[in-house]
Amino acid sequence: MIRVTVWNEYRHEHIHDLVRSVYPKGIHEAIAEGLREHGADFDVRTATLTEPEHGLTQEALDATDVLVWWGHMAHGEVDDAVVDRVHDRVLNGMGLIVLHSGHFSKIFKKLMGTGCDLKWREASEKERIWTVDPSHPIAAGIPEHFELKPEEMYGEHFDIPAPDELVFVSWFEGGEVFRSGCTFRRGQGKIFYFRPGHETYPTYYHPIVRRVIANGAKWAAPSGSARPIRGNHQPLEPIQ
Amino acid sequence: MIRVTVWNEYRHEHIHDLVRSVYPKGIHEAIAEGLREHGADFDVRTATLTEPEHGLTQEALDATDVLVWWGHMAHGEVDDAVVDRVHDRVLNGMGLIVLHSGHFSKIFKKLMGTGCDLKWREASEKERIWTVDPSHPIAAGIPEHFELKPEEMYGEHFDIPAPDELVFVSWFEGGEVFRSGCTFRRGQGKIFYFRPGHETYPTYYHPIVRRVIANGAKWAAPSGSARPIRGNHQPLEPIQ
Amino acid sequence: MIRVTVWNEYRHEHIHDLVRSVYPKGIHEAIAEGLREHGADFDVRTATLTEPEHGLTQEALDATDVLVWWGHMAHGEVDDAVVDRVHDRVLNGMGLIVLHSGHFSKIFKKLMGTGCDLKWREASEKERIWTVDPSHPIAAGIPEHFELKPEEMYGEHFDIPAPDELVFVSWFEGGEVFRSGCTFRRGQGKIFYFRPGHETYPTYYHPIVRRVIANGAKWAAPSGSARPIRGNHQPLEPIQ
Amino acid sequence: MIRVTVWNEYRHEHIHDLVRSVYPKGIHEAIAEGLREHGADFDVRTATLTEPEHGLTQEALDATDVLVWWGHMAHGEVDDAVVDRVHDRVLNGMGLIVLHSGHFSKIFKKLMGTGCDLKWREASEKERIWTVDPSHPIAAGIPEHFELKPEEMYGEHFDIPAPDELVFVSWFEGGEVFRSGCTFRRGQGKIFYFRPGHETYPTYYHPIVRRVIANGAKWAAPSGSARPIRGNHQPLEPIQ
Repeated sequence: MIRVTVWNEYRHEHIHDLVRSVYPKGIHEAIAEGLREHGADFDVRTATLTEPEHGLTQEALDATDVLVWWGHMAHGEVDDAVVDRVHDRVLNGMGLIVLHSGHFSKIFKKLMGTGCDLKWREASEKERIWTVDPSHPIAAGIPEHFELKPEEMYGEHFDIPAPDELVFVSWFEGGEVFRSGCTFRRGQGKIFYFRPGHETYPTYYHPIVRRVIANGAKWAAPSGSARPIRGNHQPLEPIQ
Repeated sequence: MIRVTVWNEYRHEHIHDLVRSVYPKGIHEAIAEGLREHGADFDVRTATLTEPEHGLTQEALDATDVLVWWGHMAHGEVDDAVVDRVHDRVLNGMGLIVLHSGHFSKIFKKLMGTGCDLKWREASEKERIWTVDPSHPIAAGIPEHFELKPEEMYGEHFDIPAPDELVFVSWFEGGEVFRSGCTFRRGQGKIFYFRPGHETYPTYYHPIVRRVIANGAKWAAPSGSARPIRGNHQPLEPIQ
Repeated sequence: MIRVTVWNEYRHEHIHDLVRSVYPKGIHEAIAEGLREHGADFDVRTATLTEPEHGLTQEALDATDVLVWWGHMAHGEVDDAVVDRVHDRVLNGMGLIVLHSGHFSKIFKKLMGTGCDLKWREASEKERIWTVDPSHPIAAGIPEHFELKPEEMYGEHFDIPAPDELVFVSWFEGGEVFRSGCTFRRGQGKIFYFRPGHETYPTYYHPIVRRVIANGAKWAAPSGSARPIRGNHQPLEPIQ
Repeated sequence: MIRVTVWNEYRHEHIHDLVRSVYPKGIHEAIAEGLREHGADFDVRTATLTEPEHGLTQEALDATDVLVWWGHMAHGEVDDAVVDRVHDRVLNGMGLIVLHSGHFSKIFKKLMGTGCDLKWREASEKERIWTVDPSHPIAAGIPEHFELKPEEMYGEHFDIPAPDELVFVSWFEGGEVFRSGCTFRRGQGKIFYFRPGHETYPTYYHPIVRRVIANGAKWAAPSGSARPIRGNHQPLEPIQ
């Protein structure tokens, strides 16, 4: 059983009619529904910005194996203390899936150490996503390429560290490419960044997108290795 | 259910009393027993050099999800056609776990593209294995370090490509270090090299070693992604 | 001074009028000219398939810091002994730049350990190459993207190991992407694969392509590290 | 010409007699001297904590190709605005070499995104450093292993992202291993972490250590690639 918390800032849905029409219960519910479709492996709850401590209390995070993050217009409103708490949980083994505009979230930038900026364009154009690592569990059941139209364009250079594994690369109609599925390891935690999901498009209802996110959650679940001991250390062997 | 085939050249056990006393049923049976201990997830069979086609017929390989390889003194007797068959299966998704002196096997060298040579010494010394990637599923349940004594020393430089992931690094009493747990991806297949297991020592009865190999087999099992299409390709978009 | 040998199978130029019209002195001379343009750092010679030992005698290779490889229709005619000799030189520090259809050369496949296959299409379409690693010396002086038209399409999945560094990714008009600039390290040697250069197009006269190849040759030049010692090794510390 | 700024907090030298006796002009001067020994390629200046803006004004950083960082007891006194300025310069191409206890500096932690903690022990023990990537320019002229005694022990798990390249691994007398030479790329900048250099030991007078740092400075110098353009982007191709 993998305990997943889907976090959404849940702001666009309240102020933009178009977004509300696409995601009447919020983006988080569409993502949560997609995970639940992938079966009894997941125990899914949601959390949003306006809840106390953004719904990410220490207790809530301690009971989370994988956190899914969607944010866009309210990154600055996320409390630094909560960001530090999430960061600490990732280093101690909690998985993290960062979606789309979450590239600019405080938690992603803090974990990456870079600016995380990119090119973008809202032109309802076609995105074609190619699998470049067919050995990866996140590619399980995913065709060698699939299309999303309409989607927002994200283009290189994406200012992230070189990913530990590059799973997907996107092609865009307007002429750009993007490293769309990237994994990173930080401490005991595993992180998966997945590009699609502009708020005005029904991306999180797409069955392949849902499968990728479910695969990502399985992959990012804690491995259960020993917590490393650090600090002043006695010798294990005699020193001459 | 992961179908594992444990392959052993099974030569030392026939000609060296010491090895036979340590592994009376062969190294392959000790490894297979270790996998079976780790539960109902594995369906384990064995194969050895002297069987027809070394026990690795196309049919046998097609029914294998993960192949474990132990060889040492008879690398040269492994038929090239069988090596090519194993290679093809790895590129098409079969996992491969290469143990200890298997570093010099034809199949490992063919997959790595390098010489795969290293330093070595048989001095019954102590090996201490450190986990350097505590996020990795192969480290599940493994302490941050554990010891094997006696073991054979393997030392750097180990002539392999930079591993995709470095999970374990060994310390040796005589002054060397070694990248002891390395993963590689080739085509749709995942490969795990794990250092310990000299034939005169009871390494494959060690519970932590058995856990590492079981973890490795789970990690290396096929991901189930789509087989990539290659060759002449029609355009997906109109070309101006 | 970096001693570069540009190798070309030099076959298309003899049998296809179109190729001869584009490269009247052979593809190797166009590449060599491009390197010479980049100054006094390079001492450039060429070698071709029909020379004795394909122009790659032990003496010639020993006097080569970086070997550039272009081949396509005659991969099978390259002598295995010469391939082994080049392989050995790479492991001992010689740089190797593999261009375009060289992805299917014996030497590249031997160094990669994979099938090295890909999608392709000859439709005179547009290729747009994006720099995804702007920290890399191979990207020195290269714009964030540049275009080649016409070029042949190469598409994913490209069956190579995950590159150590991914420098360029291509976008193609017909809808594909490709990892077009990839580095690999094998032994003491550095390898750079660069995609463009179909024989019927004037790609190797393009100033940016020439700059990339020159940058690659500088990057791939031997580092001058100590040759690792391997084999039976005496302890450096007393063993208890 | 590579313009190097060697930064040192320069605190131990003022308050600990032992450190002052080893480095009477400060650790920074010993490091600077080592770089100058490696010839006309370097233009070396120094900067320290107590200078205005720690000697790292915008002007000073703009005139720096590679920054070398040594700090230990005063990490907390480094002004956040200066850290942000260094961070920005790294993302825009300035090289950074972080030495020894600099693993806990604000700038290194900010670039890594992890805790950067490790095991340590001050027992004047022996460190043996092994080259595990003999293809790397930072290993130029470095033997396959070399020893430092006495040194402080640093042991795994070192809480950093998996390095882009692992060049050196240390063996310690007391039984630990450590990833001692690690490279990372962030934005257009290159980072090299090198472990040795406890303040009470004469490590920065050691000729091999000096060579490693000089190699690192050459490797980390800016590549001169184009600055990526980010933000809202017009299509390069017509969108249907």
